[in-house]
Amino acid sequence: MLKFSSRIQGLAASPIRDILAVIEREGMVSFAGGLPDPESFPEAVSLNPPPSKLQYGATEGEPELRARIASDLNERGVYCDVEQVIVLSGSQQGIDLVAKLFVDPGSPIAVESPSYLAALQVLRFFGAKLNTFVPAHTTNIRESLSGQSLAYAIPNFQNPTGKCYSSVERDALADACDALNLPLFEDDPYRDLAYEACDTSPVVSRLQRASWIYQGSFSKSLAPGFRLGYLVCSRDLLSFFVRLKQAADLHSNRVSQWWVYEQLSDPNAGSRIGDLVDRYRAKRDYFDSLLQKYFSGLATWRVPPGGLFFWLRLQTEDVVDTRELLAPAIERGVAFMPGEPFYADPRTRENTLRLSFAHADEVAAERGIATLAEIVAARLNRLQ
Amino acid sequence: MLKFSSRIQGLAASPIRDILAVIEREGMVSFAGGLPDPESFPEAVSLNPPPSKLQYGATEGEPELRARIASDLNERGVYCDVEQVIVLSGSQQGIDLVAKLFVDPGSPIAVESPSYLAALQVLRFFGAKLNTFVPAHTTNIRESLSGQSLAYAIPNFQNPTGKCYSSVERDALADACDALNLPLFEDDPYRDLAYEACDTSPVVSRLQRASWIYQGSFSKSLAPGFRLGYLVCSRDLLSFFVRLKQAADLHSNRVSQWWVYEQLSDPNAGSRIGDLVDRYRAKRDYFDSLLQKYFSGLATWRVPPGGLFFWLRLQTEDVVDTRELLAPAIERGVAFMPGEPFYADPRTRENTLRLSFAHADEVAAERGIATLAEIVAARLNRLQ
Repeated sequence: MLKFSSRIQGLAASPIRDILAVIEREGMVSFAGGLPDPESFPEAVSLNPPPSKLQYGATEGEPELRARIASDLNERGVYCDVEQVIVLSGSQQGIDLVAKLFVDPGSPIAVESPSYLAALQVLRFFGAKLNTFVPAHTTNIRESLSGQSLAYAIPNFQNPTGKCYSSVERDALADACDALNLPLFEDDPYRDLAYEACDTSPVVSRLQRASWIYQGSFSKSLAPGFRLGYLVCSRDLLSFFVRLKQAADLHSNRVSQWWVYEQLSDPNAGSRIGDLVDRYRAKRDYFDSLLQKYFSGLATWRVPPGGLFFWLRLQTEDVVDTRELLAPAIERGVAFMPGEPFYADPRTRENTLRLSFAHADEVAAERGIATLAEIVAARLNRLQ
Repeated sequence: MLKFSSRIQGLAASPIRDILAVIEREGMVSFAGGLPDPESFPEAVSLNPPPSKLQYGATEGEPELRARIASDLNERGVYCDVEQVIVLSGSQQGIDLVAKLFVDPGSPIAVESPSYLAALQVLRFFGAKLNTFVPAHTTNIRESLSGQSLAYAIPNFQNPTGKCYSSVERDALADACDALNLPLFEDDPYRDLAYEACDTSPVVSRLQRASWIYQGSFSKSLAPGFRLGYLVCSRDLLSFFVRLKQAADLHSNRVSQWWVYEQLSDPNAGSRIGDLVDRYRAKRDYFDSLLQKYFSGLATWRVPPGGLFFWLRLQTEDVVDTRELLAPAIERGVAFMPGEPFYADPRTRENTLRLSFAHADEVAAERGIATLAEIVAARLNRLQ
């Protein structure tokens, strides 16, 4: 008998992961993952790193990249020194490090519901008791966060809903964390992908007193294959994260850090992001037109002001487990994310599904939406 | 009051880490870290990855690299399929994943003593109760491994001692694990750095029944800055490691995986390793001559048949905490690793210290050894 750790019970097989493993299949239209449009990647990537970058490096990251990140955050109102920046091997790693720092079996952790499913998985894996808060309920947010060990939030173009917190909601969350002295973990991978004028200023920039962690990613604005992100935190947490990062992988890839720094320092970096936003806005609008054409009467949705996702709610009085739609959809060559795994309480049934508009091209997107609409209509017993 | 997880108590400040943070100082001779000789790195590294490598990728790693690793291990007698290979963001990550799978607070884990200090740190962090076994005690190894949840071993050119298991010791460890059905975690970062004819065949290749994890690294044979290693395991553990890896960082850097694959496929890869071994053997022999010149009468050591380290034992009847020598050494421009943090029982005092011969050039090495000998002589109250 192998003696696994007790936390391994929280690592139950994910039927979705197993099904999604087939989406690499030729001809599959995938609305499932949060994959950026490959057309948005920098062209003709060529890396000629200085030889010094081949050696082991600092756990915290390359000094020039950290300085750049700190200066960027200062411009966004987050007052931090370069010492507070730790480069991550992708922002998924930040979730692992935060969970290691805050989560024991039974630790109460506040999350939005729905929220990023891989964050929920990691928090559950370390034994968190997930509790929920609703950022829009600004008058009782303090109550719902009381007694928690940590609050996890994605204020900008949330995954999976696409919502962006209003300024009032940002203030309310920050006030509640300060009043309760509750550490806030703000996850911000989508901030650059803003298609409308929104307040995207970090909630942590409003904190007066509470400890905080803010993390960002280069996967959406540059390219995911390099697996780089960063974490910035209040000074009281810094030494813990440095040691946790060191124990996790010593340090992040230095050649990639060097490349990302070069890209960020390119005078055209700003216009590249502008082009990226224009491209995604057009894709979003086209996707919305497809939804209107095929999903009217079948589902409701809001046009997301940023990010990568549409969040659909099926129009039915029934309770539909949207995971049951996945196998027939994949059978017919289209993949999506069922809504259920995004909820803190896995028994929640809100008839939701998440569609990424970023990856598929126009022809594939129409084929995929049309097919999905047929499958949904059949499940809802509606003729089309 | 912040509510940290209880495991954070195991993350106590490391005085060594703090002192070693200064070793980047100009002119410092460092025998401390396991840094490869930068002269050994591939020259003029240039990466022009195919655009497809910029996208998110498979958690398990790039198929072509995994196939290459599997085929290499097959040649070494480890019978595994490509499915059993998971590319890691450096082999430190493998230690984190293994600890997550096997270690609860109080889990009994068998380690060599001394052993790799960062592995001991991670195991302790997850709450392991570390017990020790001595691979050379082949007749009672089964007894000393009885009741453990996992055995962790570095059979090839062990860190920190430089020892290489004999064939008899390899057989004995494998037999004990099979008899006890005890999972074996074999860590093998130094296998390519063999300066003498040794049996370096993996212990896991001898297992008939026990579960196993074998991990390797590209940090010593190629370059550490890319942070790539790999883990291979018995089939019963595979699905756990895939999920643990996904939760830790989604997947490893694809651009680097592509580059490593290209390097391994280079027809000159074999001769490059041969040159590397020749270079390190010469450095080792030179280092040994320096030790004979300056440390005779002060310490004893064995010439390591491979790897990166000399392991010195001070010649004294006193008990010397070698950590106390570090501050004066750094003061005089030379860094080394005190022996104490390498022991499973941190109270062990065996008057040992670890010196890496790989990094410093000849002039710096002589200056460093001479200085260190003076400091040791002063501590032992011996005139030189």
